[in-house]
Amino acid sequence: MGQQPITFLRQVVALCTYPNLLDSPSFPEDSKKRARRILQGCGGNSLGSYSASQGINCIREDVAAYIERRDGGVPADPENIYLTTGASDGIATILKILVSGGGRSRTGVMIPIPQYPLYSAAISELDAIQVNYYLDEENCWALNVNELRRSLYEAKAYCNPKVLCIINPGNPTGQVQNRKCIEEVIHFAWEEKLFLLADEVYQDNVYSENCQFHSFKKILYEMGPDYWNNVELASFHSTSKGYMGECGYRGGYMEVINLHPEIKGQLVKILSVRLCPPVSGQAAMDIVVNPPVPGEESYAQFIKEKESVLNNLAMKAKLTEDLFNQMPGIHCNPLQGAMYAFPRIFIPAKAIEMAKAHQMAPDMFYCMKLLEETGICVVPGSGFGQREGTYHFRMTILPPVEKLKILLEKVKNFHIKFLEEYS
Amino acid sequence: MGQQPITFLRQVVALCTYPNLLDSPSFPEDSKKRARRILQGCGGNSLGSYSASQGINCIREDVAAYIERRDGGVPADPENIYLTTGASDGIATILKILVSGGGRSRTGVMIPIPQYPLYSAAISELDAIQVNYYLDEENCWALNVNELRRSLYEAKAYCNPKVLCIINPGNPTGQVQNRKCIEEVIHFAWEEKLFLLADEVYQDNVYSENCQFHSFKKILYEMGPDYWNNVELASFHSTSKGYMGECGYRGGYMEVINLHPEIKGQLVKILSVRLCPPVSGQAAMDIVVNPPVPGEESYAQFIKEKESVLNNLAMKAKLTEDLFNQMPGIHCNPLQGAMYAFPRIFIPAKAIEMAKAHQMAPDMFYCMKLLEETGICVVPGSGFGQREGTYHFRMTILPPVEKLKILLEKVKNFHIKFLEEYS
Repeated sequence: MGQQPITFLRQVVALCTYPNLLDSPSFPEDSKKRARRILQGCGGNSLGSYSASQGINCIREDVAAYIERRDGGVPADPENIYLTTGASDGIATILKILVSGGGRSRTGVMIPIPQYPLYSAAISELDAIQVNYYLDEENCWALNVNELRRSLYEAKAYCNPKVLCIINPGNPTGQVQNRKCIEEVIHFAWEEKLFLLADEVYQDNVYSENCQFHSFKKILYEMGPDYWNNVELASFHSTSKGYMGECGYRGGYMEVINLHPEIKGQLVKILSVRLCPPVSGQAAMDIVVNPPVPGEESYAQFIKEKESVLNNLAMKAKLTEDLFNQMPGIHCNPLQGAMYAFPRIFIPAKAIEMAKAHQMAPDMFYCMKLLEETGICVVPGSGFGQREGTYHFRMTILPPVEKLKILLEKVKNFHIKFLEEYS
Repeated sequence: MGQQPITFLRQVVALCTYPNLLDSPSFPEDSKKRARRILQGCGGNSLGSYSASQGINCIREDVAAYIERRDGGVPADPENIYLTTGASDGIATILKILVSGGGRSRTGVMIPIPQYPLYSAAISELDAIQVNYYLDEENCWALNVNELRRSLYEAKAYCNPKVLCIINPGNPTGQVQNRKCIEEVIHFAWEEKLFLLADEVYQDNVYSENCQFHSFKKILYEMGPDYWNNVELASFHSTSKGYMGECGYRGGYMEVINLHPEIKGQLVKILSVRLCPPVSGQAAMDIVVNPPVPGEESYAQFIKEKESVLNNLAMKAKLTEDLFNQMPGIHCNPLQGAMYAFPRIFIPAKAIEMAKAHQMAPDMFYCMKLLEETGICVVPGSGFGQREGTYHFRMTILPPVEKLKILLEKVKNFHIKFLEEYS
């Protein structure tokens, strides 16, 4: 998509990969300092050795220090940090442990609708029960605790709901939860003894000026010891999103709070079977949590690159929202964060009939037509879940701005033609 | 353990990580050529992009070409190659698919005893049935088809055995299967319609002069179309073993033969949820299958490094076998391949009683004593499985030869003292 990697991150990983480069004058001193620190944490000073299954110690320390800075001093313990193979590995692993040993009735896992399909896939693989709660599209995809309660109490009739998954900022919906909403969710989890699973991989991707990312952990701490000592929480981060976009490295971490020691034992066992997360991904994660600071040689370039990516994404988020909302029969909530638009599309009755005749979901029919006529590939809302009778698609805002404009123009022309054809 | 990485592999991965280095005169041309080829296969020419879930196309092509060369021209199709997050990820994934949907009776998975505990852990996670077949210790840990048959027919009484796992060269037992044995196993799998799972990660680690690695796939092909068109086979390789020892990169591949299209569909789905294997691990795998060739600039150094590692391992394998067999009450089969000794140890009745009093397996008791008295950590045979009433431990042969000698001397002194103490 044209987004360039952060130079400093790649320099450090290259130095770790081929330590002969530590003598090269073409690498800045601060990148060498980071590389030496990482290599000292590696068995035999090599990225090629297995690390501890939980991840390299000094990187877990850097993650904990990052979380403390991010959360204004809320304590973070490296012992609670687990490096993972991307966030999805952490999420799937913790779900596996929470779902097993459920007793007579099957474990329910509450997930937002729309959701990122990793959740439905993992739940189905584990033979658990997917318990849907609906985000409020009329209210900018807000999470409403009354809806959580409805969802939970209905589910209790047929399963044992134990886990509440939150995606903040939302994927595919892009909303950023406010502090009050997070407090309500935490209170609800505390009241109902639910394990909170906070997918916070888009924590650096917040664009709306009146929005701010609050970590679940920070709010949990600030709600006082009754919550802080009792609510079980796992939160996730990754090298794949933010301003770094290093998906291929499969770097990530999870932080767990109040995990029962027996569960922790199971977690360590299950992680050991897979040996360790990729060590180069661990190194990449280290740079995300331990980037250049003011006064260091690489700081200026790092900040320039980081802000360029984030400002660009913010601009594209606004552009996408505006252009969608100019199209007849399309409504798009503000893209407060993450990397996607999830506009609601009006599909005429005739098109719905036609889709049924083709044994397709109506939005799948729409997306296939869009693909055939324009070459643009977007994902139908039915892949993420949506309220019965509503239709959406998900589109990333990652293409370069000039391409994105052309692309949105094409979607518009297609959409108008589609409406005409099936009206 | 002092084993140095292969320079060429690290050079290529560093070039891919930080492509600015492609202009540097300190990297040889052949490493740059490899790096350019890999980057061309990456989205946006970057290791940071997600790859296809099956792995980067040109790397799968290189894997297929490698397999064809290895197997003397037996055809290999890149479409049948899946890059994985180390071999263990591939093994766990294929087991997951084979075990699911078993119908009324639970799926049985046949594994060698002693085994590498990834198998027992994966089988237990999947709630499948572990079906043990015993390797013949008296006969250098050979695999005997009569024992396979006994194991299978006994298991049919309580489960539905569908998968036969082979580890060749053996882990922890180090035997290298001969051609006749492999033919018999394939015939047996064909006859009994078992899915063959060949763990061949130690294919480069063969030390005994009268042994040779034969891939299951090659022999399957040579047995003719009746077998070649019918026996389902998955085989595994990795960057972690051999002469490269790049465990931290989590690189690996699996090749599948005669996989049912429906199963293949499931496989692709399950892999997609985890997005892709780490791309730097894929790059490392590429160099394992596409190393420097005669005439290329880096060939001489590559061969020198490779042979140095392998010759060293061969020497240590012989040394370890010899020294163990000089110890009273210890018998060690020839270490034909892999990286471990798995000697049988005599444990006196008094020590067995003492272990029971401590609620420990006798070999665990032995290994704990060894650890306490010498600081040497070996793994008790009970972690791998062994015939009732026999005791073993597993030790790697990876330490530098001088350390290995000291270590074996310490084990010897400990063992003699242990025998005296408990006789």
